Amino acid sequence: MGKPTSPWQVPGDRERRRELKRDAVILAAARAFRERGYHNTSLDDIAALLHVTKPTLYYYVSNKEQMLFECFREGLGRVASACGEARGAQASGRERLVEVVRGYAEAITSDFGWCMVRAEDQDLSPAMGARIKKLKSGIDQEMRALVRQGITDGSIGHCDPKMTAFALAGALNWIAHWYRDDASLSAAEIAERFVELFVNGLAPRPSGVTSGKSP
Amino acid sequence: MGKPTSPWQVPGDRERRRELKRDAVILAAARAFRERGYHNTSLDDIAALLHVTKPTLYYYVSNKEQMLFECFREGLGRVASACGEARGAQASGRERLVEVVRGYAEAITSDFGWCMVRAEDQDLSPAMGARIKKLKSGIDQEMRALVRQGITDGSIGHCDPKMTAFALAGALNWIAHWYRDDASLSAAEIAERFVELFVNGLAPRPSGVTSGKSP
Repeated sequence: MGKPTSPWQVPGDRERRRELKRDAVILAAARAFRERGYHNTSLDDIAALLHVTKPTLYYYVSNKEQMLFECFREGLGRVASACGEARGAQASGRERLVEVVRGYAEAITSDFGWCMVRAEDQDLSPAMGARIKKLKSGIDQEMRALVRQGITDGSIGHCDPKMTAFALAGALNWIAHWYRDDASLSAAEIAERFVELFVNGLAPRPSGVTSGKSP
Repeated sequence: MGKPTSPWQVPGDRERRRELKRDAVILAAARAFRERGYHNTSLDDIAALLHVTKPTLYYYVSNKEQMLFECFREGLGRVASACGEARGAQASGRERLVEVVRGYAEAITSDFGWCMVRAEDQDLSPAMGARIKKLKSGIDQEMRALVRQGITDGSIGHCDPKMTAFALAGALNWIAHWYRDDASLSAAEIAERFVELFVNGLAPRPSGVTSGKSP
């Protein structure tokens, strides 16, 4: 049994409800953009999905461009959280990187994955494009730093940190292109297969030397 | 000294010249689409780049959509050639796959790379979209088959062929997203770093067990 709900407004409720509604707007937009494409979706479409009027949407976002940006930021925020958790962990560079790969796969298979990958290409204003580029670059730098850390602590073999981060991000971002048509695996299952490939490589390893789970 | 050129038309010349001109049209289109985006490029823009009139373009392609398709096909044709060469080679599955990765990197860093990666998202007609999807699927199937072959001949360790092909193609396709802004490495150099990562993995290998070059 939960607490009895009060018909009187509790302080902070208003802000929380606004937050919940804003999240619902962003989620509806992400789903619509993913389904029909950004250019083929109007604010009217999104309003209709939520059974509200267009002016109601303007209470949460100022235009369609900002809506795409918020979707992008929501998706990338999940990757950033994974990076933050990895930073705080007592683990090798490789283990931390593997945690980021797992969080990235979760984010990219979410409703926000399409926006994360396509936002930059949607003819946004130069200012908006620059903000998106900067956020993406931040994630890229975090991944490179983890690769460098792994090389230093011996958990990652000699490699080019920049190309390694690009290859990882590319493989992960591309999930958004095929996941809509083929969602036969969960995010966690995809992540495990990617981790296995990235950690152990294609070449067979002498038995007992492998696994993405132990350093 | 070359052969003296004849002012009379040699049989076959007409076809060859038409072919050369058609190639020039497709290349100009690929560069314009990559530079400005597909939706922001008109046939007039492409005609202007070639110093011809728009009706001249219609001698080679029937519309802008077909132009994008031809750019896409040109880029993917290069990957298909690499697959064809790999098929004919006396080599392990892994060596063949590595050759495809090299050819793929060459194709994706070419002027056609942008069209290869973005063509499917450009709101083409359903028929055109289906043709592009089919060609892409062919390459995907070739890559999966090489992974399976490598597992069978022992050159590739146990893995999921589909996810492995998706990860490889994703990392390779993503090159088109960053290569325009950062072309500090050649296609061959990028390919070597990717091959090193995919073949050997991030985890350090006991010395003497590695390399993407020998089976």
